[in-house]
Amino acid sequence: MQYLIYENRELYVEKEDAEVPWLKIFTKEPYKELTELPEALRKKLWRVYEIIEKEMLSYYKPTKINMASFANMLPRVHIHVMARFKEDSYFPNPMWGEKLRKSSLDLPNEEAFHKKVFEALNREFRN
Amino acid sequence: MQYLIYENRELYVEKEDAEVPWLKIFTKEPYKELTELPEALRKKLWRVYEIIEKEMLSYYKPTKINMASFANMLPRVHIHVMARFKEDSYFPNPMWGEKLRKSSLDLPNEEAFHKKVFEALNREFRN
Repeated sequence: MQYLIYENRELYVEKEDAEVPWLKIFTKEPYKELTELPEALRKKLWRVYEIIEKEMLSYYKPTKINMASFANMLPRVHIHVMARFKEDSYFPNPMWGEKLRKSSLDLPNEEAFHKKVFEALNREFRN
Repeated sequence: MQYLIYENRELYVEKEDAEVPWLKIFTKEPYKELTELPEALRKKLWRVYEIIEKEMLSYYKPTKINMASFANMLPRVHIHVMARFKEDSYFPNPMWGEKLRKSSLDLPNEEAFHKKVFEALNREFRN
């Protein structure tokens, strides 16, 4: 199930339904490409990315963070942030690549992670 | 064949051998994750990304720009920038996804594009 983790006036963060921790960052105003975002909004988008990456690293201690922006089917730019683990089904392939094994992941509680992300973003953007 | 398109003291840009226009941005100093880059360097990395995206959009008029950072095999963060076209072999899948057709792309001269990227990055970073 996809659901909302955080939103402010300009940006929101959704959880993607996947075997690995995977969040997606959207601007409320839709844009096709990253360079079409006004500069101030693009900076805020990267700030959201950085906060999520740091929280993922600290909470999950993943093998690697993966990040991507495709939106080929529906051309509305958004950023995928994924925590990857050597035990996940696709590693070292991207999550869009060939599945290599049955996942043996045993991850800590996701709700506590989402709460940390919400709180960190709220601290950053509440003013 | 992969080869160097641009370099300065801190960053360099390589061409990836692929059916679509595809450049990769590296920091000379290796880092595992994006948030490990010093803030000033991360800003320069995103500035390089923006310049490449704009040159790709203007030169190739692609259906969509794709961007990604994985580095799962060799954990050294770098950014992929790809111009995607509805006629390419994988569209709308990511370039790491399932191949869907034989490409019927007929793209303009790549060297002229690389020269434009070099000149734009050189203007930005020569001081």
